[in-house]
Amino acid sequence: MELSQAIFSGCEYAGTAAFAVSGAMIAVEKHMDLFGILFLAVVTALGGGTIRDVLIGSFPPRMFSSYRYLLLAALCALVVFSVARGFGTRYLANRERLDQINNIFDAVGLGVFAVSGARIAVEAGYIGNPFLTVFLGMTTAVGGGIFRDMLIREVPFVLKKRVYAIAAITGALAYWLCLRAGALEPAAAFIGLTLTFVLRMVATHFRWNLPRAIP
Amino acid sequence: MELSQAIFSGCEYAGTAAFAVSGAMIAVEKHMDLFGILFLAVVTALGGGTIRDVLIGSFPPRMFSSYRYLLLAALCALVVFSVARGFGTRYLANRERLDQINNIFDAVGLGVFAVSGARIAVEAGYIGNPFLTVFLGMTTAVGGGIFRDMLIREVPFVLKKRVYAIAAITGALAYWLCLRAGALEPAAAFIGLTLTFVLRMVATHFRWNLPRAIP
Amino acid sequence: MELSQAIFSGCEYAGTAAFAVSGAMIAVEKHMDLFGILFLAVVTALGGGTIRDVLIGSFPPRMFSSYRYLLLAALCALVVFSVARGFGTRYLANRERLDQINNIFDAVGLGVFAVSGARIAVEAGYIGNPFLTVFLGMTTAVGGGIFRDMLIREVPFVLKKRVYAIAAITGALAYWLCLRAGALEPAAAFIGLTLTFVLRMVATHFRWNLPRAIP
Repeated sequence: MELSQAIFSGCEYAGTAAFAVSGAMIAVEKHMDLFGILFLAVVTALGGGTIRDVLIGSFPPRMFSSYRYLLLAALCALVVFSVARGFGTRYLANRERLDQINNIFDAVGLGVFAVSGARIAVEAGYIGNPFLTVFLGMTTAVGGGIFRDMLIREVPFVLKKRVYAIAAITGALAYWLCLRAGALEPAAAFIGLTLTFVLRMVATHFRWNLPRAIP
Repeated sequence: MELSQAIFSGCEYAGTAAFAVSGAMIAVEKHMDLFGILFLAVVTALGGGTIRDVLIGSFPPRMFSSYRYLLLAALCALVVFSVARGFGTRYLANRERLDQINNIFDAVGLGVFAVSGARIAVEAGYIGNPFLTVFLGMTTAVGGGIFRDMLIREVPFVLKKRVYAIAAITGALAYWLCLRAGALEPAAAFIGLTLTFVLRMVATHFRWNLPRAIP
Repeated sequence: MELSQAIFSGCEYAGTAAFAVSGAMIAVEKHMDLFGILFLAVVTALGGGTIRDVLIGSFPPRMFSSYRYLLLAALCALVVFSVARGFGTRYLANRERLDQINNIFDAVGLGVFAVSGARIAVEAGYIGNPFLTVFLGMTTAVGGGIFRDMLIREVPFVLKKRVYAIAAITGALAYWLCLRAGALEPAAAFIGLTLTFVLRMVATHFRWNLPRAIP
């Protein structure tokens, strides 16, 4: 039990870092200053959880009480800033490769946030409301990315490409179904996380997209 | 009394559908995938009410407890998706006409949401605060559309054209004034709804715009 | 004590007016209609405080109970609208100069909102949480501007240029440190406000920017 909690915590840190790195990398490309890079990293990493907390009326949002995630996100922003500044053109030439590596951690983050969002909904007493539970899982997982894309005035990535949100929804739904079927919480969390991660990695590899109305 | 409630409910469904259709149609045009189409339809139809619930501290927001509106919005998104996919170029050629038809239902939605937002403010005990009551009516009516336009990175339509928000404000204010003057609630609701609807339709027909500072 | 409160109130009005004017001026340039101009002025002036109130779960947000700020913001919007409409091309030719004058009041607003946001966090019992206190100060000061820029689909100014947010953070942090060190509240407020104001004016004058990763 304690081991499973430690693994889940490790995944949460990995996911927070991946989201923060993706936010910071985009801020660098958009020529933001150091504050903008820190801000976008924090928004991407902690924005989804903050929207979730507002939606269930949990004040102040968790990002203001568990400092570790915030500090981790800020640290990641500083690392990206330093690397981009130090390597200059070499950073620019290799950023797609960096993005590919980050994508793996991003998929871990997607899974762990989908599950932790659903878990907080269940802990707040909403296990009888599957839609709210799954929606909060999805919001925790993709809310930060949507907010990030709105800040840099792009149509949010999650609305256009790959099975990103669907992977988070699937994981949160699996978590809820497992709990309902009487599974132990750590087992349900493991299944939800793994399902999201695998779905996302497979979708990336095979370049799966959801259908569009007009190609 | 029961009849008036049934009519009002019918108007709420019509308005939800119209808002969802407008969100889905824009998502189709922006080449979003199926998830994006569903998301934009739901945001447009239920976003205003969700912002309203957050502003008065009513958690979780109503969209998570009355599933009917959510299901209706999702259904509308699927219909738009299927029609656009099925008819292809013919859909594209006729979408302006579709938009014109949808515009009538949209005006019904504007009126019914302006009134229902104001009603929820009154039920929450804010009848003594006309500004909050009218603001919540306006927010319920136009908040989803503003959020939709921010997601597709357009300057919100409501800030630029026609007397859209003003129609909602007028209806919500009329509702509040009628209640204050001692009118029965269904009568106040009917007056507010009708006023918004008529104002909006007339403004569309005569291409009324509010003045701009510099033409 | 009463004098210090009067001065602080005066600064709050000056800041609200400056923020509203900046919002209205941008709305005029974006060819918004009168409603858009009013809306953008109100969002810029009161949006930061509203986000702050939502984050600490204070409902309904203060803008709905203290009407004075709202009326002041609306009045400023009407003045900008009338001036732009009346002077036409002369307004357009001189708006940079207007912006420079407004910039001074904007710096007052930045300082006073940074302090008042931090004060509300302290009054809500969060003095033991420096991060939340400083974050709410910053949010109150820059949140309205970020929201304004998202509505007109610009990458928020605060993420790109000058030491805008940093000045607000510095002032809110100084306020918190002074209180912690046992200073009287009005003295702490004065120090926080002045520090933000001076930092912002100096940064504007010398065209200070935070470093970017890639020039």
